[in-house]
Amino acid sequence: MTTTRKKQAEQTKQKILAAAHQIVRNEGIHALSSLKVINQAGVSKGGFFHHFPQIEDLYLYMLDQLVQRLDEDLAPGNFTTLQAFIHATSEYTMQLLENAPESVTTLFYFLSQSHHKPEYRKRLQLMLDSMFEHWSHNISHFFRPDLTAEQRNHITRILDMYFCGFSFHFLLLGDKAGYRKISAQFAEMLADFVHKEESHEK
Amino acid sequence: MTTTRKKQAEQTKQKILAAAHQIVRNEGIHALSSLKVINQAGVSKGGFFHHFPQIEDLYLYMLDQLVQRLDEDLAPGNFTTLQAFIHATSEYTMQLLENAPESVTTLFYFLSQSHHKPEYRKRLQLMLDSMFEHWSHNISHFFRPDLTAEQRNHITRILDMYFCGFSFHFLLLGDKAGYRKISAQFAEMLADFVHKEESHEK
Repeated sequence: MTTTRKKQAEQTKQKILAAAHQIVRNEGIHALSSLKVINQAGVSKGGFFHHFPQIEDLYLYMLDQLVQRLDEDLAPGNFTTLQAFIHATSEYTMQLLENAPESVTTLFYFLSQSHHKPEYRKRLQLMLDSMFEHWSHNISHFFRPDLTAEQRNHITRILDMYFCGFSFHFLLLGDKAGYRKISAQFAEMLADFVHKEESHEK
Repeated sequence: MTTTRKKQAEQTKQKILAAAHQIVRNEGIHALSSLKVINQAGVSKGGFFHHFPQIEDLYLYMLDQLVQRLDEDLAPGNFTTLQAFIHATSEYTMQLLENAPESVTTLFYFLSQSHHKPEYRKRLQLMLDSMFEHWSHNISHFFRPDLTAEQRNHITRILDMYFCGFSFHFLLLGDKAGYRKISAQFAEMLADFVHKEESHEK
């Protein structure tokens, strides 16, 4: 593929992504279909189905884009403590849910559906496993270097589960002040635990 | 309402609930509609719409039934430590997700949708707030009595967020052995934190 064609392909994908977000935001997840996205994005059928043979491919791409955005906006290297990282992630999540709730609700919808689709579940599993590996590496400077890979991986998963539930609670209940406090407590809890695990290792 | 009529009303609701679960399990959430449930459950239209004027009322009832079941099957009074309670809740959740994933995925779907429906969001908020109050009271024997109501409430919410994320992870990734270990770590973390909070209070 030449550079120009690559660039065009990327532009097509971004148009499709923007259209998908807009449809879900304005009309709800039920309205999302390949044809609707094609019309709204103003791309050709061939272009759409080349990138996304099935609607699930679009969901996976949306998830991938969200993960990449989080990775850039919340690079753990920018924070010196686990508490500061969790605080920033909380604030970021609340802002995202206020401004673009569809970016999260669409994924919840897809995740709850993918259980019935073994092939996509497999791809999603690979994606999540590699994401947890990547993150547990990236947050390793919050811990002592002698923490085992398994311990780091488990802590990363607990963090992810917390923010998964946090998104649900905040989406439904709002209460920024309350959930800000709760995240601070969770951060303290996790930091204490990591510290204790380290002490055990000594 | 006479006792007989109350009993009949309860039977109708249970038939509707069973039909709704079966439809979602076999055909996916998209297939769930009032008319389909009416046919499958073998109840009258009048009977259905009397209990559930809108499909969201059925979702709220499904959530309420799940919460009641959890309350009966996992009464915190049956456990002497927070760790034992979290262990049992993990095992219960994994079994539920293996045997009847639709009881959880349907709710995830509804929760992700309810954001667009202010009236149902309000009812859901009231239901969740009262549920957290009830639970934070029920698990209070795991903590010292001088823990404040706010502290107990926050810990209950952290627990709920964990199991929300836990359900997502397990639904997608399986790995019973891995998530059993992670829950044990989470339980230790939470118990340590509660103990530390108690020490502060002294």
